[in-house]
Amino acid sequence: MSATDRGLLYGDGLFETMRIEAGRALYLQEHLARLAAGAQFLQIPSLPPGDLWQAVALTIAANDVAEGSLRLTLTRGEGTGPDPVAEAGPTLVINVRSGLPYRKEQYLNGFRVRLASFRRDSSSPLCRVKSLNFLPNVLARREAKAAGGDEGLFLNGEGNLCEGAVSNLFLREKGRLITPPEDSGILPGITRRMVMDTARGAGHEVLEEEITPARLGQAEEAFLTNSLLEIMPLVAVDERPVGRGVPGPLTGRLMELYRLRKGAARR
Amino acid sequence: MSATDRGLLYGDGLFETMRIEAGRALYLQEHLARLAAGAQFLQIPSLPPGDLWQAVALTIAANDVAEGSLRLTLTRGEGTGPDPVAEAGPTLVINVRSGLPYRKEQYLNGFRVRLASFRRDSSSPLCRVKSLNFLPNVLARREAKAAGGDEGLFLNGEGNLCEGAVSNLFLREKGRLITPPEDSGILPGITRRMVMDTARGAGHEVLEEEITPARLGQAEEAFLTNSLLEIMPLVAVDERPVGRGVPGPLTGRLMELYRLRKGAARR
Repeated sequence: MSATDRGLLYGDGLFETMRIEAGRALYLQEHLARLAAGAQFLQIPSLPPGDLWQAVALTIAANDVAEGSLRLTLTRGEGTGPDPVAEAGPTLVINVRSGLPYRKEQYLNGFRVRLASFRRDSSSPLCRVKSLNFLPNVLARREAKAAGGDEGLFLNGEGNLCEGAVSNLFLREKGRLITPPEDSGILPGITRRMVMDTARGAGHEVLEEEITPARLGQAEEAFLTNSLLEIMPLVAVDERPVGRGVPGPLTGRLMELYRLRKGAARR
Repeated sequence: MSATDRGLLYGDGLFETMRIEAGRALYLQEHLARLAAGAQFLQIPSLPPGDLWQAVALTIAANDVAEGSLRLTLTRGEGTGPDPVAEAGPTLVINVRSGLPYRKEQYLNGFRVRLASFRRDSSSPLCRVKSLNFLPNVLARREAKAAGGDEGLFLNGEGNLCEGAVSNLFLREKGRLITPPEDSGILPGITRRMVMDTARGAGHEVLEEEITPARLGQAEEAFLTNSLLEIMPLVAVDERPVGRGVPGPLTGRLMELYRLRKGAARR
């Protein structure tokens, strides 16, 4: 990397993280579409999807990764000064790693979250863009880990729960799934959307509504989603149990349905 | 730079920008103190000030820069995943450039600002840290430049003016200087502090108070400050004139006093 890349100097860029299974990046098309939308917003020239697709495939193959993760980083490229002027076009970086960052017990016993000490500003135009300005998320993860949690959870400026540091939030209430709406300060996750589709396809009602802390406290069960760890049963917030304090039955059913859906998508 | 440096991956780092005059970085000690405070907040191991001081001097000398700018970037170093774990200690980058990014007419005619379309969240713990998460500032600069302005200006969540994209704000009211307080969402600038000291030393009253847009509209004059361009006369906000719409007399006097102070500091 150049030491004058604007990705480093200002976080002037975007990224996507994908799960690799059987040597392929899952939901690559959806991730590339979100990357392209972010690039359009930031006015970073996008690379042709076909080139990105090929670069991803070549990188996975060259590193011989069967199961693991892939990160795609697109920056505005080299250039100094705060004005978004790139001197020589965008920079693309692809990182791959074998293995995934979880312990099996986390899925059996459930994930525990900690409320972040600061809020997500839902009025920021950057909420909906997966930019390299990821330090609030890093700090929320640090706070959560320091308190013995697995993930940090953000309130937005209105005091509603909006998303985890690296995950989206779902709860079950009267049998229906509820997840915070896109304008609540969340990054709309690819897995969030896939889980909504999966649940609806299986006949479950899914609503996008604001979630107060009290509402989560009274939920029948809850889970988090992201592209690497997919569906994570959520069993505690700041040591207070969610639902019965164990992974819930609908969470388990959706995990199974999601696995089947992935298998079908790969074929 | 490594392609797994957390500065690039997450904006997990800090920077300082200084003016070089006569081959020396101005107010280096003050910038290094702010860097150290930010590093403590982010829990990034800091390098000994003596080492940083020497690295700065060597870089300026090696590049033979008499007048220009220097940027010091400190990241958490290499490491993947959102948790702030560095695998091999921090990364330090020093960039130097000859020349400064202004046109002489800007000082004669004054700088024109544009209000950003989005606000600064003064409750964020990152406001007071000069982190690599600089994209909101980049976007505010883009908006301002696209509208023919020289700099973007942020409102905070309370609707008060807090700072420019890369500058602090001062106005004159009944002969006194007013600048927004440190908890209003600003990055407390080194030049802001030096100008406050300079003004007070010359017998001017300086107050840290919230500045509504109406208050700026009624100001006798106003200016912006930063480390590279120092004191910039502010003459218009969104095409509405500030004061008489020309650089003000106190601004000119402070520019002169600031120059003298710098000269004394260099000796």
